[in-house]
Amino acid sequence: MADVYTASAVLLEGLVFRGHTSTGHDLVLDSSDGGGRGPTPMSLVVLALAGCTGMDVISILRKMREDVTGYEVQVRGERAREHPRIYTHVTVEHIVRGRELKEANVARAVELSATRYCPVSAIIGASGTVTHTYRIIEDSGVAATGADGG
Amino acid sequence: MADVYTASAVLLEGLVFRGHTSTGHDLVLDSSDGGGRGPTPMSLVVLALAGCTGMDVISILRKMREDVTGYEVQVRGERAREHPRIYTHVTVEHIVRGRELKEANVARAVELSATRYCPVSAIIGASGTVTHTYRIIEDSGVAATGADGG
Repeated sequence: MADVYTASAVLLEGLVFRGHTSTGHDLVLDSSDGGGRGPTPMSLVVLALAGCTGMDVISILRKMREDVTGYEVQVRGERAREHPRIYTHVTVEHIVRGRELKEANVARAVELSATRYCPVSAIIGASGTVTHTYRIIEDSGVAATGADGG
Repeated sequence: MADVYTASAVLLEGLVFRGHTSTGHDLVLDSSDGGGRGPTPMSLVVLALAGCTGMDVISILRKMREDVTGYEVQVRGERAREHPRIYTHVTVEHIVRGRELKEANVARAVELSATRYCPVSAIIGASGTVTHTYRIIEDSGVAATGADGG
């Protein structure tokens, strides 16, 4: 993993910026007060958290040989009313679908990401609270059987 | 500006997630070790910083009636070698192009964003150092003249 990341943002018009990351991706950013031509910077922060912890947790569950059939991370961030309007309270819910998943393994994977591996969680957690929860959904396999027979 | 932002990330395959923000934008995220189908979460964090402080600074300079003809923000983030690999040292360079810009105003706009307005800078600054610098480029107007005559 890179030790240095760079990014640039070039003003296009209004508050619209064309962003570019050192991973080689372009992305338009915009203010929520503007035309909404792209995500706002603060919405990217909670999205980054969702992706960061999600990549950790699915990697760990695969190493644990858990049979995950679906996975979604939902993040909700409350902002301070005073400037600078940081995230004061952030909740992260991990929704893991799979076959005969061991709850202890899901709990452990989430805990490892929250406390040890996920840098975005650690960064936000330095000035606010970040709470991770999980929900396990047993995959009955009905949909898969239906697809097989279709 | 919203008091709450939400985001979700749904696993597609490998470490590729389809992200969605409450501002209504979709974005694919990927690991740097993967196929690079989208920006990595940590690259989004420095991009968010570039956009966040950029929107502040250009807004302030416009209120100051400075004649800005071009503006770019470049961010460089160094990560810790140990988990969680947070940003330990981040530099932000504001490159402002314009006509007869007052340096004191540019300095003040950057300072206000860095110390008061930009939440992403404050969030990253809670666990690492964030240094903002600026560079002013006088816009000679030659290009504009050339375009007029073209």
